[in-house]
Amino acid sequence: MYILVNEGIIPKSSFSIDIEDRGYQFGDGIYEMVKVFEGVLFEWEAHLERLFRSARELRIAISMNKEELTKQIQQLIAIENLRDGYIYLQVTRGVAARVHHFPEGATSVLVAYVKEGGEVRKAELTGIHVITTEDIRWQRVDIKSLNLLGNVLAKQKAVEVGAQEAVFVRDGFVTECSSSNIFGIKDGVCYTHPANHFILNGITRQVVIRLLEKVSLELEETPMTLEALYEMDEVFITNTGQEIGPVIDIDGRKIGTGEVGEYSRKLSSEFQRLIDSVVPSKQ
Amino acid sequence: MYILVNEGIIPKSSFSIDIEDRGYQFGDGIYEMVKVFEGVLFEWEAHLERLFRSARELRIAISMNKEELTKQIQQLIAIENLRDGYIYLQVTRGVAARVHHFPEGATSVLVAYVKEGGEVRKAELTGIHVITTEDIRWQRVDIKSLNLLGNVLAKQKAVEVGAQEAVFVRDGFVTECSSSNIFGIKDGVCYTHPANHFILNGITRQVVIRLLEKVSLELEETPMTLEALYEMDEVFITNTGQEIGPVIDIDGRKIGTGEVGEYSRKLSSEFQRLIDSVVPSKQ
Repeated sequence: MYILVNEGIIPKSSFSIDIEDRGYQFGDGIYEMVKVFEGVLFEWEAHLERLFRSARELRIAISMNKEELTKQIQQLIAIENLRDGYIYLQVTRGVAARVHHFPEGATSVLVAYVKEGGEVRKAELTGIHVITTEDIRWQRVDIKSLNLLGNVLAKQKAVEVGAQEAVFVRDGFVTECSSSNIFGIKDGVCYTHPANHFILNGITRQVVIRLLEKVSLELEETPMTLEALYEMDEVFITNTGQEIGPVIDIDGRKIGTGEVGEYSRKLSSEFQRLIDSVVPSKQ
Repeated sequence: MYILVNEGIIPKSSFSIDIEDRGYQFGDGIYEMVKVFEGVLFEWEAHLERLFRSARELRIAISMNKEELTKQIQQLIAIENLRDGYIYLQVTRGVAARVHHFPEGATSVLVAYVKEGGEVRKAELTGIHVITTEDIRWQRVDIKSLNLLGNVLAKQKAVEVGAQEAVFVRDGFVTECSSSNIFGIKDGVCYTHPANHFILNGITRQVVIRLLEKVSLELEETPMTLEALYEMDEVFITNTGQEIGPVIDIDGRKIGTGEVGEYSRKLSSEFQRLIDSVVPSKQ
């Protein structure tokens, strides 16, 4: 197995992370996960843009520019002969004797690897069960950082009661989920939390927002109360792994008819059309 | 250089952290830093107790029990021939293909190493300058976890303006600092934030609380407003590295006389007496 690090593409076995890597001691780093369909990176530009934004926000210097990084990632996909799966990429502030502030002289550590399969697209859209939990995370979740314990604990809470996702509620308002964004549809209007420092602006979220017009939905980027969420006609979540996940119940309360909604289906079809428009086999 | 890992004490060069260690991808782990004076671990029992509490809160299983871990750490100090310095110890949830929830079958990864010197005790107490910043961290900072970006950014902010520490203020109330607890003294009463989920219950904080009686100070564990903090007769911070750090100004505002206070000096002497009571050379 080969991986990409600062220096280039090397066998995984020849790379070692230092104990004093700030990613390991402080979660001081950022990441992206990008889907690959038929060897083609999906929405790569958007992921790349967000990666560099996260880096700027934390003032982490990435050792390659966008063009170089793109070339290296494509080379890694070729070397690993990846057809369908994803790449995982992270950049930490680097290795330094442990101090809280940014250490002088540390060079950021970039690591990327590919995985086949993963959460692959299902032919059939299955409704998912979600629960709600208080959003106790820090107030810069717009940075896609490695500080993910709040997300980990929320997802674990969901899994333990047989749910697939946990919806965060902050001061009575729905923000997002443990590893996805959330949308509610009511009377032809699609609501979702605005992209501020209380949510991670998901790439799939951004894609879905672009697709709303195609299914005649109006967008309203405004926080929903939990009560309003329960009363939506349809609710769905979005993330890179699952794309669109129609929510059929929240905290055991049926949403709409309690079945996968029409808009969720239509958006999912539009999403598939978008993927088809970039994969070689459909050209 | 030798380090302690799950398996025992091994050369650092023969150990490698996996990219998929959850400490590296989620900050999903806990840590402790413990001072060593003349080869003797200072307040080890308290650190050990807190480590196991953090582990319980995150449901991370530590591969050794307290007795075994103590024995191994003491052996590491002996092998590395450490006289004065500290040990750094962390435990992550282990290595697993990346999923947010607790992965099945992962074994926690324990790593510990020693360092000589570090932030050593100064003969003379020097007053420090601090600034204040909004506490935007998550609401489980009572767990000594590896999710430290909020602390990192706050400390960096302080360092950039020539201050030594950043004081967190949440909803108008002082919680703690980026890597220390904070105390204020007014009219013979010593105020500090109660040990709930908004602060890390520092071991030095606990020691200082025990010492208050010796210097005739009354303890009041109640949050101070920022305004009240500015008006204190004396303010000091505590942590394992620096022990007691007398604050002479906050946001450029002079505290008390603007010099190191009498109680800070007395507490520092009591602290030294406590250290002397455990080191071999003073027996």
